[in-house]
Amino acid sequence: MNKEENYTHTFDRVRVVMVNTTEPGNIGAAARAMKNMNLSQLTLVNPQGYPSAVATARASGADDVLSNALVCESLEEALQGAHLVIGASARQRNIKWKQMDVVGACNEIQKITSVENQTVVVVFGTEKYGLTNEELDLCQILMTIPGNPDYFSLNVASAIQVFAYQNYVYNTTTQFEQSSNKIASFDELEGFYTHLSQVLEHIEYFEDKRPKALLMRRLRRFFGRAEPEKEEVAILRGILRNIKPFQK
Amino acid sequence: MNKEENYTHTFDRVRVVMVNTTEPGNIGAAARAMKNMNLSQLTLVNPQGYPSAVATARASGADDVLSNALVCESLEEALQGAHLVIGASARQRNIKWKQMDVVGACNEIQKITSVENQTVVVVFGTEKYGLTNEELDLCQILMTIPGNPDYFSLNVASAIQVFAYQNYVYNTTTQFEQSSNKIASFDELEGFYTHLSQVLEHIEYFEDKRPKALLMRRLRRFFGRAEPEKEEVAILRGILRNIKPFQK
Repeated sequence: MNKEENYTHTFDRVRVVMVNTTEPGNIGAAARAMKNMNLSQLTLVNPQGYPSAVATARASGADDVLSNALVCESLEEALQGAHLVIGASARQRNIKWKQMDVVGACNEIQKITSVENQTVVVVFGTEKYGLTNEELDLCQILMTIPGNPDYFSLNVASAIQVFAYQNYVYNTTTQFEQSSNKIASFDELEGFYTHLSQVLEHIEYFEDKRPKALLMRRLRRFFGRAEPEKEEVAILRGILRNIKPFQK
Repeated sequence: MNKEENYTHTFDRVRVVMVNTTEPGNIGAAARAMKNMNLSQLTLVNPQGYPSAVATARASGADDVLSNALVCESLEEALQGAHLVIGASARQRNIKWKQMDVVGACNEIQKITSVENQTVVVVFGTEKYGLTNEELDLCQILMTIPGNPDYFSLNVASAIQVFAYQNYVYNTTTQFEQSSNKIASFDELEGFYTHLSQVLEHIEYFEDKRPKALLMRRLRRFFGRAEPEKEEVAILRGILRNIKPFQK
């Protein structure tokens, strides 16, 4: 496989997910932005007024990206099989997700996608408010786009353009050593979190001063930050299986 | 002058010039793209159908950039006083201008604008054809935007967005809010590993095919990678305290 083919495969392992997009024109503009930077995998979660002639017009010659786009009803569905989920945010957040700028995120993407069959999803929220905290809970990394601290109101297609450009530049210049260890996929991680939450219920860990929602968010953030390998998730679940409920 | 003021002055020394723009919406989108990346100086050469409600709508909160924009009848007029003129081009050209990619161009911009009163102009051509050779003759540097060799058809506002982003990043380094949460110290982590190992003994997790030394090494590597905060170690130890040995 020559270098150029290798690059193309790497680009194909990056999926852009647009959640609750309200303006079909932005979907078309996003498709055009993506194709210009060699990205082709697009998923739309609950797009409003789509498909639409406006979207197709704004896509210009990138209507193939639109016609190949997947349409889902939930973000969870869109994330199936992903090995790393990155959420785009206009601003830094109070609750501390693992945060990085676009360059840092592209570095992570490069690491994951350099291994065959590993995929990364980058999620962009709705025009007015971006991603909700619940949507960000499904993300391991929060990607912020640097910009004017006094006015930051990037159009969603512009944000995708910036990301896609940076990803293109990053991918076509940087080489990384390949890790031989396989990263756990989104659904494997979700399975672990479900299992963990059940076990914590059984051992009566949650209580008023340790509310389940808050603690699970913190644990997700913690485990997500480590970008667990498949084998590590298997080890953690092996531990969980050995934990039995209290015998009162 | 503090660092932040210095940055602002540097940004103010960069002017974007749009030549013969045919879609007013693109002018609005360009203003928004610029303001998001701290640029404010815009000149329009022979804009068609401008001013326009469409432009103002697409500018979103960046209508101040529009209302301060200069309108000229010729590119020569727009370039008066510039210390460096850079022309944006979707493709490399046959006739050999001094060519560089966006990062290289931003490096030149930085060099020029770091000197007081020196200004740089970056020129973007009309939607369909970009800059003519005659217009490029007025430029010292031809800036190409990297992208898909098989489909390169950046919208002009998207091209300005990419340039403005790269210029912003080049001019500043991103500061992330420091997490107020303290990272766990070496001894706190060691205390956690000892505790974890004891609990795993108690629940009879280790066995011949799950040797303690190997498993503990893998768990250390896993937890260490997440760079746990003090609070997170406290949460994990809280969980461990709730796990009781098997009742046989």
